[in-house]
Amino acid sequence: MSKGITPQSKDYSSWYTDVVRQSELADYGPVKGTMVIRPYGFQLWDNIKESFDKMIKATGHVNAYFPLFIPKSFLAREAEHVEGFAKECAVVTHTRLKADDEHGLVVDPESKLAEEIIVRPTSETVIWSMYKKWIQSYRDLPILINQWANVVRWEMRTRLFLRTSEFLWQEGHTAHATAEGAQKETLDILELYRQLAEDFMAIPVITGLKTESEKFAGADKTYCIEAMMGDKRALQAGTSHNLGQNFARAFDVTFQNKDNQEELVYATSWGVSTRLVGAVIMAHGDDKGLRLPPKIAPHQVVMVPIAKNENGHLKVREFISPVLDEMRKGGIRIYEDWSDNSPGFKFNEWEMKGVPLRLEVGPRDIESGQAVLVRRDTGEKIILEKNMITEQAPRLLEEIQKGLFEQALAFREKNTHEVSSYSNFRDTIKNKGGFIRCGWDGTQKTEMKIKEDTNATIRCILNNEDLSGMKCVYSGNPAKHVVIYGKAY
Amino acid sequence: MSKGITPQSKDYSSWYTDVVRQSELADYGPVKGTMVIRPYGFQLWDNIKESFDKMIKATGHVNAYFPLFIPKSFLAREAEHVEGFAKECAVVTHTRLKADDEHGLVVDPESKLAEEIIVRPTSETVIWSMYKKWIQSYRDLPILINQWANVVRWEMRTRLFLRTSEFLWQEGHTAHATAEGAQKETLDILELYRQLAEDFMAIPVITGLKTESEKFAGADKTYCIEAMMGDKRALQAGTSHNLGQNFARAFDVTFQNKDNQEELVYATSWGVSTRLVGAVIMAHGDDKGLRLPPKIAPHQVVMVPIAKNENGHLKVREFISPVLDEMRKGGIRIYEDWSDNSPGFKFNEWEMKGVPLRLEVGPRDIESGQAVLVRRDTGEKIILEKNMITEQAPRLLEEIQKGLFEQALAFREKNTHEVSSYSNFRDTIKNKGGFIRCGWDGTQKTEMKIKEDTNATIRCILNNEDLSGMKCVYSGNPAKHVVIYGKAY
Repeated sequence: MSKGITPQSKDYSSWYTDVVRQSELADYGPVKGTMVIRPYGFQLWDNIKESFDKMIKATGHVNAYFPLFIPKSFLAREAEHVEGFAKECAVVTHTRLKADDEHGLVVDPESKLAEEIIVRPTSETVIWSMYKKWIQSYRDLPILINQWANVVRWEMRTRLFLRTSEFLWQEGHTAHATAEGAQKETLDILELYRQLAEDFMAIPVITGLKTESEKFAGADKTYCIEAMMGDKRALQAGTSHNLGQNFARAFDVTFQNKDNQEELVYATSWGVSTRLVGAVIMAHGDDKGLRLPPKIAPHQVVMVPIAKNENGHLKVREFISPVLDEMRKGGIRIYEDWSDNSPGFKFNEWEMKGVPLRLEVGPRDIESGQAVLVRRDTGEKIILEKNMITEQAPRLLEEIQKGLFEQALAFREKNTHEVSSYSNFRDTIKNKGGFIRCGWDGTQKTEMKIKEDTNATIRCILNNEDLSGMKCVYSGNPAKHVVIYGKAY
Repeated sequence: MSKGITPQSKDYSSWYTDVVRQSELADYGPVKGTMVIRPYGFQLWDNIKESFDKMIKATGHVNAYFPLFIPKSFLAREAEHVEGFAKECAVVTHTRLKADDEHGLVVDPESKLAEEIIVRPTSETVIWSMYKKWIQSYRDLPILINQWANVVRWEMRTRLFLRTSEFLWQEGHTAHATAEGAQKETLDILELYRQLAEDFMAIPVITGLKTESEKFAGADKTYCIEAMMGDKRALQAGTSHNLGQNFARAFDVTFQNKDNQEELVYATSWGVSTRLVGAVIMAHGDDKGLRLPPKIAPHQVVMVPIAKNENGHLKVREFISPVLDEMRKGGIRIYEDWSDNSPGFKFNEWEMKGVPLRLEVGPRDIESGQAVLVRRDTGEKIILEKNMITEQAPRLLEEIQKGLFEQALAFREKNTHEVSSYSNFRDTIKNKGGFIRCGWDGTQKTEMKIKEDTNATIRCILNNEDLSGMKCVYSGNPAKHVVIYGKAY
């Protein structure tokens, strides 16, 4: 009864959509480009969310909520910002519907707004209009606010989790008294993003700086975490922006500094979104479906009873319940599948849904006082004495968490190439895919030419690399930066 | 330096706005009718949210997320529903802005949508369009889904937390195989709402049924919790709807029942919103500001050091830190106010912000090995030996939680009246305010006439009341129901 997932090797894109739909992570909504996040997918997102929320609270950040609606004029105040978002805005123009004899329900023309409203694509403008009210003196700084919210960017080509018109995210918006303060915050958050990706989602990431052409519209500098997906393409998984004084200038937000002088406030903003769910799917998934890292998996263990009837169920329950209770006390998230489906169906189902450990309990297990644990990452079967399960399960979950990370890291390393010439570069991108680590002369001309030729882009500029003797892969001029090239989602 | 809050007795409405703004719970956003929930207000909402989220998860509900955008045509499918929401909809008509030499940034007319999109005022329609895909058989039921989301209802008269164009809420949307299942769910949730209000927010509520004219647009029956605010007006604090088969009919959602017959699915929906924050403010606040119930207060204890200089701070810290650490281990949320402001300023500040317990530690306290605890609800000062604080603080917090509830309950009972005649009814509403408990003949005519005369409405129909010999307060005809009348927010 397996529904059939397209193999990755046949068509990675179909594999992705099959996994998302069949494992009930998400579905398309009725308005083009919108997404329904189903309970299983939402719990996965919620676990990622909770992990990051704890991190930012531990570092002094607080949550707040700013309005969905932004006056159109606000967007125009920061020149690059409006340039970046004007072409993908949902615009509210009216506030009422009315019945029309001829056409049914129509927009009431009399409800037309004097100024159109933009559904937030991001909240810098509305937040800095409020910070203007809240900030007077250096004593009011820093402000370290985050919000968890939905945002809308009209997209023509959409893909569940990766690119949808509406998505969920967190957006941090901080205000600082000094340029150094803002830069430190930008990098501190980048480090938290790295930890979230590597320590919780088991996805190795490269951290670095975006080029001028790839940075956020309105930022001085954009830092990012970049991950390699199972098809060797790059996914930008999070960005942290040093906004300098750009938004303070646009919204006239000044403060009295310690020397009693008026100064423009320094800003950062940073975000990760439901796109991270897409990253988890593509970094770890295989032809059977999802493989979820235990730290963020909705269920860490699924218990599947092997029993033919009510009486069989009863025996399994009697045997295993005390063990499950104890595991739960230890903080393990367990799902017990008592449904009518056959054990084989359940095995497939929960493998597809990526549950890290399967606990099987059948009549022979009960007789011999043991149970079978099956690892989703390796398929390995472990037979354990009943009284060893509680002790061994957390250890196995840790191993799976670590194993998934190491596997993804090895995959990335195997698929990160050095090249000897530009023709080698082009061949590698075309035939092997993956990342290329190389020198760049720092010119936009080179960046654009390579993009034109190969569709690969600079994913990020690496920090603290040794440039001595290094040349630009395209121009042959001395390299200004070491960069990572790849084709991106 | 107290900023001055208008006394309740002078102008309750100004008192409310002063408290919300000055205690930094919320602020108005740039688009008319929108609200910014500031960190202190957001933490309060988040604590309410977490409390309820645990309750619904413990009863088998799961969270999900459905799109913000609804096709206009969906709204029209359920006749009462569209009637209820058409006049207050934010309508998205375009998806792009462009630069115009003459007018600056304008809506790009070429981006006009073929079908206009509604920003969700509530999600029944979009959710039932998805349930149609997900439900085939009785085996797929019940579906017990909730979402935490923002919704938009265009409002002309707005008030922070109570009535804003955008607000945050939870909306549960469940699907059932039987009418009994849906009715049970409707009432189970009503009971959870009662617990949330009474046990967490310390607000006594009356539970009951809405009249036909006050029920949700699209429901068969709407149940509610109603609370009395400090100005004796009623606040509808939560509603639970039995939607019957109305939305299943509108979206053609059928299932194969156990007898192999196609049947329309039964539905409920239910919601509480950021309005609950307004309820907390008005049920407990006094002329000094907020009084927050410990279970939902962002800070349960604020520690104010009484010290003149750095050295004084150091001594306080040394003395009290071990106590605070131990209290935190016990799960108490503590804020330490080490700011430069004077102790007097801090006392006012944290009284205004409603922190249940203030812990004062000064040089004399340190000398005598004790500290002072001050209750926000009663103003009572309690001097405690240092080693008694950890033990006594949780007990005091419990007492405050209980005390606030009892005070609100006594206030409601004192202001709930029985009346002997309709002229007595009118006098009472006009001169005393509060609730009136009386008989109603069940006709809309009576309901409308009383509303016209007095501006009071039936807040809810009570359940299981003895009707013998009871007459309608207006018509004198035999009463069909015992109801609660009051002026409402």
